[in-house]
Amino acid sequence: MAYFKLVEYDKPSLRDPALVQGLPGIGLVGKLAVDYIIEELKLPKIAELYSGYLLLPEGNAGVFIELNGTFNLPRYEFYLYRDESKDVVFLAGNTQPVAWGQYDVAERVLDYFESLGGKRVIVVCGTTAAASGEERVYCAADDPETVEELKKHGFRVSLSGSVTGAAGVLPGLAKVRGMKSLILMGSTQRTYMDPEAAKEVIKALVKLLDIKIDLGNLDKMIDEFKKREEEMAKLSELWERMAERARREPEQPWYV
Amino acid sequence: MAYFKLVEYDKPSLRDPALVQGLPGIGLVGKLAVDYIIEELKLPKIAELYSGYLLLPEGNAGVFIELNGTFNLPRYEFYLYRDESKDVVFLAGNTQPVAWGQYDVAERVLDYFESLGGKRVIVVCGTTAAASGEERVYCAADDPETVEELKKHGFRVSLSGSVTGAAGVLPGLAKVRGMKSLILMGSTQRTYMDPEAAKEVIKALVKLLDIKIDLGNLDKMIDEFKKREEEMAKLSELWERMAERARREPEQPWYV
Amino acid sequence: MAYFKLVEYDKPSLRDPALVQGLPGIGLVGKLAVDYIIEELKLPKIAELYSGYLLLPEGNAGVFIELNGTFNLPRYEFYLYRDESKDVVFLAGNTQPVAWGQYDVAERVLDYFESLGGKRVIVVCGTTAAASGEERVYCAADDPETVEELKKHGFRVSLSGSVTGAAGVLPGLAKVRGMKSLILMGSTQRTYMDPEAAKEVIKALVKLLDIKIDLGNLDKMIDEFKKREEEMAKLSELWERMAERARREPEQPWYV
Amino acid sequence: MAYFKLVEYDKPSLRDPALVQGLPGIGLVGKLAVDYIIEELKLPKIAELYSGYLLLPEGNAGVFIELNGTFNLPRYEFYLYRDESKDVVFLAGNTQPVAWGQYDVAERVLDYFESLGGKRVIVVCGTTAAASGEERVYCAADDPETVEELKKHGFRVSLSGSVTGAAGVLPGLAKVRGMKSLILMGSTQRTYMDPEAAKEVIKALVKLLDIKIDLGNLDKMIDEFKKREEEMAKLSELWERMAERARREPEQPWYV
Repeated sequence: MAYFKLVEYDKPSLRDPALVQGLPGIGLVGKLAVDYIIEELKLPKIAELYSGYLLLPEGNAGVFIELNGTFNLPRYEFYLYRDESKDVVFLAGNTQPVAWGQYDVAERVLDYFESLGGKRVIVVCGTTAAASGEERVYCAADDPETVEELKKHGFRVSLSGSVTGAAGVLPGLAKVRGMKSLILMGSTQRTYMDPEAAKEVIKALVKLLDIKIDLGNLDKMIDEFKKREEEMAKLSELWERMAERARREPEQPWYV
Repeated sequence: MAYFKLVEYDKPSLRDPALVQGLPGIGLVGKLAVDYIIEELKLPKIAELYSGYLLLPEGNAGVFIELNGTFNLPRYEFYLYRDESKDVVFLAGNTQPVAWGQYDVAERVLDYFESLGGKRVIVVCGTTAAASGEERVYCAADDPETVEELKKHGFRVSLSGSVTGAAGVLPGLAKVRGMKSLILMGSTQRTYMDPEAAKEVIKALVKLLDIKIDLGNLDKMIDEFKKREEEMAKLSELWERMAERARREPEQPWYV
Repeated sequence: MAYFKLVEYDKPSLRDPALVQGLPGIGLVGKLAVDYIIEELKLPKIAELYSGYLLLPEGNAGVFIELNGTFNLPRYEFYLYRDESKDVVFLAGNTQPVAWGQYDVAERVLDYFESLGGKRVIVVCGTTAAASGEERVYCAADDPETVEELKKHGFRVSLSGSVTGAAGVLPGLAKVRGMKSLILMGSTQRTYMDPEAAKEVIKALVKLLDIKIDLGNLDKMIDEFKKREEEMAKLSELWERMAERARREPEQPWYV
Repeated sequence: MAYFKLVEYDKPSLRDPALVQGLPGIGLVGKLAVDYIIEELKLPKIAELYSGYLLLPEGNAGVFIELNGTFNLPRYEFYLYRDESKDVVFLAGNTQPVAWGQYDVAERVLDYFESLGGKRVIVVCGTTAAASGEERVYCAADDPETVEELKKHGFRVSLSGSVTGAAGVLPGLAKVRGMKSLILMGSTQRTYMDPEAAKEVIKALVKLLDIKIDLGNLDKMIDEFKKREEEMAKLSELWERMAERARREPEQPWYV
């Protein structure tokens, strides 16, 4: 039996909560979206899940060292959003389960979420499917009726293909349990991280769940991020020009 | 313990049923054969089996997205054929178990099949062994007597070698349980898919099980498939001629 | 829990039996030795062990097809040698467990062997350590006293290094159980198979266990094997000469 | 369930012992440090832990052959240090668990250590983070208070990054259990082994745990080690000069 340990900081009584999962994946879209909501709204942590299937990003077991010199095993963290009319549990994490642990980890998440009375699962992630204009968010759902509803919200419907990793397994297993589940995918062409796609996904969540959140800080982060991208682009252009000059004048050392 | 979930839509009372498994493999022969029978005869689904060992074809856990925007985990599906004198359970699927899950998945299939009163297992698949003329189907069986019977039906006997994957493990484990089991392999030289080999396998099943089925639609599919193959062949011939012309006239840009 | 199934054909009452394991490995030395003894003495099979950790040699799950068209899962087979004064159980097999199943499989073997009253384990295998003259068999044992005894029999003592696979794990786990165990390694420089090294190992077993066996058929097999090796060597020499001639006369087609 | 076997040679009654783990890893720093302490102080062995997750360094299951011709499975060994005021358990080993067994093995270690009444875990290992002067030992801890204390001892605080393998998993899981835990990392730039970094780590342990030990033999080993390094450096210089001469005089055979 693989190692699992659920640490509960609070055992809240919730009103038909939804679960929103955002983990590392394509363009870090899902993780950026959920992390931003948690940070911006200063949501309290209610639980942590540890597992022998949650490894460091490079595939080794081990601990992350935080900026203050403390260490922690890779883990899932559950945060609670509450307003006058509803409850939402956000699931954030710094890693995905290894391939052969995806089902076990997702089952533990669903067990915990059911113990909170939850029956609806939403996953946010990135997709490399291209999109343009207003419709930068793709969707898929457990049944055709939900697909139709999502269409009315302006999301594009994914037709064929697959969703890999925890972003697919969690809603897939939720469906087998008879829970409602859907996937929101922010279209991205960036490989490392894409805060703009994350913003589209946050807007989609706001629309679906009627969450109150200010996107001002996210816009600042996007501006900052784009400025750095431009600087990097200029630097690599400069670098290439120097390299070419060195190639054209091989007799001269390049630093002259 | 790996994740397993059997969803039963019907608990039929069956008369000594046979199980026929056809999963993705060499030339897609087994899958094409069983899928055609299920589609053509509009067989009702009686059960689904989900497992953490059933991954997407590329080896990741995840969900398939269907053409209507809904998603499903990879799964085995059981369909029921009945006529006045007999019952046959067909096992279809969109994936094979991972190597280390083959035994566990096959054991679950046999447990379920035994709960239906079944004691005979047939697997259909492809083989790269060459064959010609009338005898395009190879066979192997759990005991020499069955091998002799299959020979009389005109099948070629496999002598040495191995059958890998679910097509070997299911009948192998059935034999250890004392069940009768045999393998029918359609000879194919095509790597991606071979509907002609699938047709030979369907004819073999018809002969062995006395199933009533019209192969007209299959013949149409084969014609269609061959036409496309020819178009592809012409296209690649054209492409090669253009490439050669470009090679012979290097001073000229190729598009002149 | 991985799949295991022990099939017992006989439940003999044994007199402090030894277990001798010979499985596929370096130069096939261990397998050839044990298979020869079983064949030559026509030993009866008393049990088979099936496991989800016993895969086909290429690492896939599946079945072997025998020369008569029947199939079998990879398995361990236990055979019984008896003479007036002692009993020996021989363990033969057509595969080794996968790396992550070595301990579980070896534990099942030891459980079964202990149920027969056994307390002594001998493993035969090959080694790439060079040796010459009379001393072509290396040894290692669970305690220094046994090492000294083996030395007196003329075996070379392995000093440092490791024994990988089932040939190491079975005696290693036997030692942890407090059983006596030792390893006999036939020195071989052949990669595929080495019947001469196997003969040295059989002679070592005869010496240690006082087994009565005629090696005449083995000598015939070795002669046969060497003759084929020589033919292969001549063929590849001829092939190389033809290839060189083709290289020296590039204008001519090679078949002129 | 994976194979685990704890062999206890002694069941000592201990006074709030600390556990110090030093296993093979970067620069062999942790292993060299703990092995030196055990050897120099001739600590008695109190237990061994065997596991199917402890493989040979190359990733195969098997046994090590010792210099006297006996064999042993890879294992963890527990040694006991006692003086008038305190007890320390040292954990040494000749291998690390495979990636997917790290959690299970660490849990067994913690179970055993808790059965001895222990609540504090220290891991020593190497790190490739560069350091200079007096501060050649990096540290990380389970909470910020311990980090502050370690700083006062003159250790550098790791800020971000990760600790992989058993050196991270053991303290990570200890933290989840509510035990105190910390990591001491000797900075090393040597890939194979670094006895100088090990010395820094031993000095750190002496400071933290107030252990009495003579480092004279370690200094001799370091001198010996450096002498051999210099000889190797001279040899490879000579080798390169010969190779270069051969390159400059291509018409001549290199051995003239």
